[in-house]
Amino acid sequence: MLFSGVCLCHYLYLRNTPRDVDVADTLASPKCMLMMPPPGAPAPVEQVILTMTANPSYSESFSFDPADPVFRAHEGGKIEVVATKALRDRADLALLYTPGVADVSRAIAADPSLAARYTARGNTVAVITDGTAVLGLGNIGPLAALPVMEGKAVLFKHFAGVDAVPVCLETGTVEELVEAIVRLAPTYGGINLEDISAPRCFEIERQLRERLDIPVFHDDQHGTAIVVLAALINAARVVDKDLASLRVVVSGAGAAGVAVTNIMLRAGIGDVVVCDSRGIVSPTRTDLVEHKHRLAATTNPRGLSGSLGQALVGADVFIGVSGGQVAEQDIARMAPRAVIFALANPDPEVHPLVAARHAEVVATGRSDFPNQINNVLAFPGLFRGAFDSGAPQITEAMKLAAARAIASLVAEPTAQEIVPSVFDERVAPAVAAAVAALA
Amino acid sequence: MLFSGVCLCHYLYLRNTPRDVDVADTLASPKCMLMMPPPGAPAPVEQVILTMTANPSYSESFSFDPADPVFRAHEGGKIEVVATKALRDRADLALLYTPGVADVSRAIAADPSLAARYTARGNTVAVITDGTAVLGLGNIGPLAALPVMEGKAVLFKHFAGVDAVPVCLETGTVEELVEAIVRLAPTYGGINLEDISAPRCFEIERQLRERLDIPVFHDDQHGTAIVVLAALINAARVVDKDLASLRVVVSGAGAAGVAVTNIMLRAGIGDVVVCDSRGIVSPTRTDLVEHKHRLAATTNPRGLSGSLGQALVGADVFIGVSGGQVAEQDIARMAPRAVIFALANPDPEVHPLVAARHAEVVATGRSDFPNQINNVLAFPGLFRGAFDSGAPQITEAMKLAAARAIASLVAEPTAQEIVPSVFDERVAPAVAAAVAALA
Repeated sequence: MLFSGVCLCHYLYLRNTPRDVDVADTLASPKCMLMMPPPGAPAPVEQVILTMTANPSYSESFSFDPADPVFRAHEGGKIEVVATKALRDRADLALLYTPGVADVSRAIAADPSLAARYTARGNTVAVITDGTAVLGLGNIGPLAALPVMEGKAVLFKHFAGVDAVPVCLETGTVEELVEAIVRLAPTYGGINLEDISAPRCFEIERQLRERLDIPVFHDDQHGTAIVVLAALINAARVVDKDLASLRVVVSGAGAAGVAVTNIMLRAGIGDVVVCDSRGIVSPTRTDLVEHKHRLAATTNPRGLSGSLGQALVGADVFIGVSGGQVAEQDIARMAPRAVIFALANPDPEVHPLVAARHAEVVATGRSDFPNQINNVLAFPGLFRGAFDSGAPQITEAMKLAAARAIASLVAEPTAQEIVPSVFDERVAPAVAAAVAALA
Repeated sequence: MLFSGVCLCHYLYLRNTPRDVDVADTLASPKCMLMMPPPGAPAPVEQVILTMTANPSYSESFSFDPADPVFRAHEGGKIEVVATKALRDRADLALLYTPGVADVSRAIAADPSLAARYTARGNTVAVITDGTAVLGLGNIGPLAALPVMEGKAVLFKHFAGVDAVPVCLETGTVEELVEAIVRLAPTYGGINLEDISAPRCFEIERQLRERLDIPVFHDDQHGTAIVVLAALINAARVVDKDLASLRVVVSGAGAAGVAVTNIMLRAGIGDVVVCDSRGIVSPTRTDLVEHKHRLAATTNPRGLSGSLGQALVGADVFIGVSGGQVAEQDIARMAPRAVIFALANPDPEVHPLVAARHAEVVATGRSDFPNQINNVLAFPGLFRGAFDSGAPQITEAMKLAAARAIASLVAEPTAQEIVPSVFDERVAPAVAAAVAALA
């Protein structure tokens, strides 16, 4: 049964008023499909209504309307800088500014470690992007990325009390961006890279980690990887399979795909097969760029070649971080009690209700279905823990510990609940404690 | 009569408890001189007590003491980043972050001018330094400069509602710093350069103004120049001399000296003589660097050469922005009804009470004497005005207008009051209005 309104699901979601929508109004167009939940599945209104088809894309639904709740919520931006100390009179001025501040500057010049105590630096993370891979929107540039970075700053403060400032950099070469960020670094206690396109992001992060003595964390890689691993730990419990023995297929060899693959390998999962748009990444391919060569060397232990569909035959887990689509007949050939994480957002690689026909546990990146894989479960607590402990970097061990901490907050995982809610207030402190314990 | 305690004046000032100090305790050492005000001059305790001599310098008084009120006031830093919109539930999350924020990003990608409305950019200034000329402390580096930049952010918000974020850059060449700042620029609505050493600051500002379409303002140059001109306008009224006819001697050919000189020339003052540490800047000198060549070409209309003392003979105005010292016998040879602005901070080029023996109007950079020349009178309102009007730059005309606006707030200037108080709430709005009117 076909319905109109490509973005009706978003419309419903954003306005949070699904019950007011007259579904009959949507009958005119064949663009969208009303997808009913499988019999017996939980069916709150928000989940039942509908979704977009794979094509046309979400972007078609966009129009600028100042009266739209989204634009009204963004009026004037979403963050401000405020003083934490009162400035009432000349005495305050002399303490907080000249001449008093000169003593603080001299103390820091003599002992740089005092900057963590006497400036906001020790609680401040720069949320840095060049706008080359913003959400699913692609290379829209640094200025257009600013609302997203401000949103991230809101999340950092809300969930973990971290002060975050957007830094949107004019795009350049890897070297130019690294140089700019290295110059900026004295200002901040940590650097959260965001929405920087692959494969540039790998080299940028690598060089920055080498040159800086503060945590550098590319959230699109490692934030995603941590939450995926947390979800996978609990999904394995639900389907009663051993984590390390899982056969996993990853679709997507970009920032998230590489990081998700690497964290799974470090977590002991031996059989990971990565696919890009041309199929299985394997050493026999002659078209691989450098980071895919590394993937080919560390994954695909059974030496598969061919299509994603071929990789999925008998697989226990499918993890989509590609933005592409997967045919239902391909996921139908997965192993019994399969797990599907279709994380492309807003259009999952396979619709969760389709996935549910063939898999026991289904997760997406979306908030309007169960099991949302959302980086906000990871990054606020990670920097909270690094700042609390003075950790000079976020190590691989910390990332694994963060994933396990997140997973542990769901005492009895079920197919409908493999990760905690993003609003679960235990999450950031648990992640922070796990990170700080390894500092 | 001699007293101990190089920094007793600061001690008194910072603690704001001058009446508690046992002056008798200070009799042991010859380092400081108690300077009494001239008969009849206002003598509140704060002004009477004492000051340091020219040597030893203020820096000798410094020691790191966590219990000191200055350090207590700086604990944890002085600013934080807070959300301006409530994040209560998933609906808020979907508005402020994904998926809602994607619409805002797309709108800005399509029409960059919308960034001013839907992000904090239009109210946000970057306070950028490389830490090469911090206060009077010299090149103490970007990290040690951070407390000063945070202080400035406090002032921006308090006086003009401007959101300001510190950006402390690792020092580099002019080209490297300009490149780094140009890359950063999409994040901000304006750039306030701060505490960057001369002559690098001139070229850095020039290149940034050329390459960016947002206001770029080097406060150590233009903030100082604006407030000096405001003070001079009113000082001329006090001594009943025509502004344009004043003979002015500027001691110091650094950032402030150049800018003060230039704004006076633009304000119509024809006879300005600039001195550096080697004496009068004139075309006959063979040791001049580039920016002093330009000064030599535009100043010194009577073709003087020689020492600062020689320049001061018959001068109406002395403006010290050097950090050096001027002998009393030199200022004694100035014209009747002289004006002295001894702005080196915390050690004025000539002590204000010494200056008062030979000049009718005396101003300093210090808060513990009358007529404090403080940049905070200018920069908050300037950026407020630029942001309110969407001005792409702060023009020379705006700087003159700002100076006149500040001067106009003192209805009846006297020798003790040529500039408004920094806490005069009319100042920033008046400056903002003057700037916006020219946008």
